[in-house]
Amino acid sequence: MSRIAIPDGSPFGPDNLPYGVFSTKDGSRRVGVRVGDTVADLSLLLLDPVFAAPTLNPFMAQGPRRWAEARERVRSAIEGPVPKQALHPLQEVRLHMPFQVGDYVDFYASEHHAANLGRLFRPGQDPLMPNWRHLPVGYHGRSGTVVASGTGVIRPCGQRKDPAEAAPTFGPSRRLDIEAELGFVVGAGSVLGERIGVDDFADHVFGAVLVNDWSARDLQAWEYVPLGPHLGKSFATSVSPWVVPLAALEHARVPLPGQIPAPLPYLRGAEDWGLDVDLEVEWNGERVSRPPYREMYWSPAQMLAHLTVNGASTRTGDLFASGTVSGPAKHQRGAFIELTWGGSEPVTVKGEERTFLEDGDTVAITATAPGPGGSRIGFGEVAGTVLPAVES
Amino acid sequence: MSRIAIPDGSPFGPDNLPYGVFSTKDGSRRVGVRVGDTVADLSLLLLDPVFAAPTLNPFMAQGPRRWAEARERVRSAIEGPVPKQALHPLQEVRLHMPFQVGDYVDFYASEHHAANLGRLFRPGQDPLMPNWRHLPVGYHGRSGTVVASGTGVIRPCGQRKDPAEAAPTFGPSRRLDIEAELGFVVGAGSVLGERIGVDDFADHVFGAVLVNDWSARDLQAWEYVPLGPHLGKSFATSVSPWVVPLAALEHARVPLPGQIPAPLPYLRGAEDWGLDVDLEVEWNGERVSRPPYREMYWSPAQMLAHLTVNGASTRTGDLFASGTVSGPAKHQRGAFIELTWGGSEPVTVKGEERTFLEDGDTVAITATAPGPGGSRIGFGEVAGTVLPAVES
Repeated sequence: MSRIAIPDGSPFGPDNLPYGVFSTKDGSRRVGVRVGDTVADLSLLLLDPVFAAPTLNPFMAQGPRRWAEARERVRSAIEGPVPKQALHPLQEVRLHMPFQVGDYVDFYASEHHAANLGRLFRPGQDPLMPNWRHLPVGYHGRSGTVVASGTGVIRPCGQRKDPAEAAPTFGPSRRLDIEAELGFVVGAGSVLGERIGVDDFADHVFGAVLVNDWSARDLQAWEYVPLGPHLGKSFATSVSPWVVPLAALEHARVPLPGQIPAPLPYLRGAEDWGLDVDLEVEWNGERVSRPPYREMYWSPAQMLAHLTVNGASTRTGDLFASGTVSGPAKHQRGAFIELTWGGSEPVTVKGEERTFLEDGDTVAITATAPGPGGSRIGFGEVAGTVLPAVES
Repeated sequence: MSRIAIPDGSPFGPDNLPYGVFSTKDGSRRVGVRVGDTVADLSLLLLDPVFAAPTLNPFMAQGPRRWAEARERVRSAIEGPVPKQALHPLQEVRLHMPFQVGDYVDFYASEHHAANLGRLFRPGQDPLMPNWRHLPVGYHGRSGTVVASGTGVIRPCGQRKDPAEAAPTFGPSRRLDIEAELGFVVGAGSVLGERIGVDDFADHVFGAVLVNDWSARDLQAWEYVPLGPHLGKSFATSVSPWVVPLAALEHARVPLPGQIPAPLPYLRGAEDWGLDVDLEVEWNGERVSRPPYREMYWSPAQMLAHLTVNGASTRTGDLFASGTVSGPAKHQRGAFIELTWGGSEPVTVKGEERTFLEDGDTVAITATAPGPGGSRIGFGEVAGTVLPAVES
């Protein structure tokens, strides 16, 4: 038996307890919880076969009462001595995609991001579309290319056309970008015809992850009318390995900055689902942005209520993400196209002037949120390195 | 032992042999093949456990050589006497969703449809966007709401805004529509970074189904800028129960009508993947349209080549659909918004003037294609009935 040591000030203390899927050299994938810099094997700690599964889906499908009960059991278990074979130093395990993705929807919930992209993609027009303040605009992304943090991101090829060119050309993207986002994972789904009300959010959503929605801006700009982004986004979307349970974000819940005009009744709720999460974006190890999630216009509860108001069903493992998190200040922008204003205002990264991503670049997004008693709740990181295009 | 009787002129003769998933009163879901009006249970006919699965996915994942071999074995088996317990009259079985959908992408490959919708959604502007003749425009739809033919379609609620209104209102869609499409099912997938060339289509695509992409035009018109359709489409997409193998469509392959300008090299191939499939749309039992698939501008091989040219991976069960099939003539339009010109030119259905769908309406889409020796290859039908909105 052994006690888990938690470093002072760790954002992975007993008030966080995020879930992930890991493997060791000699074992198959199974569910673990992160405590400090230790991964506790839940299949051994709680002796429950649902945690011997290679994804979180079977556990998430059990619903919110079970999530609360398991959280309590984990919290008790880690206080006392624990069987030694259930514990692994973080650096000795391999972390995997924590859940199998059902559908993936990406929203566009930051007013600052939407307005910046409007100015860049549609200069001279009203930066926000007329619908933007009435509904959380979103679209379906490719769930089959949602990948675990650490997966290499191959530079995509595709059609690009500068306004000055007469016809599109084919080749590797020249404007490869990131989008720093929070993603929300549906645990308990809903059937066709059922709506999930804004105040029923926590009955359905299991937790949150960090998302990097890699974006090829040149492909996107050419292809996106009138049916939205496709190949500019579908080549890879990375998620962090630890799913932070909603219960760990209780102290991060804040009111939204304000919605004018008031949204339609189905988007109004009694509970606050703004989230005071601080993101950080590191480009080759240098911090270039600090996007504040608390500035988001639409809450994740509104996103889910909107997504299902037409009767669309949801499934365990559905992922919906916020869209780029950008604050009002320049250093709070969560995409490089905004940070460098379409490439016209380079940023300095490790002494070099940079605009879009180059082969070999690594981007890591991290985040923390307030926990009880001045503690912090960590999300860990979502990271990826750009690999050269495959040209043949 | 028993012989299978095939009615004269049946479009389900030995040159078709489409695969589906069925159950009987006393049995679980398993894979069958349709021969005339009989369903042959392949788990008994070929004594292969892959056909005892509740979806076609395990069989489809085995790849094209195995598909060809199984087709030969089925063709031989149905010539001779067959164990009686392997055969079920079609009207005594229940047909299910034939495959588990991975990602669902919907294209926009009919020039006539795209131009008609451009005129209706963006009057006064060029009906085709500048990108339309350069790439097959498409977007991801909701795979979790792809349903089997026969599933009731609940009228979706959502935000609508007429141009004359100052703000959007909430309520049931007033412009519920259909889109008659062909869908293509990926059997053998591809990994991240791999491209599927236009001439490798048949190595990856298992077969084709009919698709009805139910569409709420009022929701769609308000929400779709700038990220594309979402709730206007995500409430239900119906597919036909029989997956027609690509091999059964050999005699339907024709050149495309013509592409000007010539597409970029990655969209050019040596093989013809235009398809001479005749669709029919019945509204409450009255035929209102005959969309000709042979008029489509982009081929399904081009759609798949485009979808993967950025390195996006594909999975067994991925579904990609053509978008509405519309020909140049009015009676060849595959969506009611085109057929009735935005509701301004009603059609007569069973003696009544009709524009968009009313509660209780049933739409059935059927199709056939040429087979060898003057025979026809049947797709069966995709049907659905509109159920009233759930307003609470």
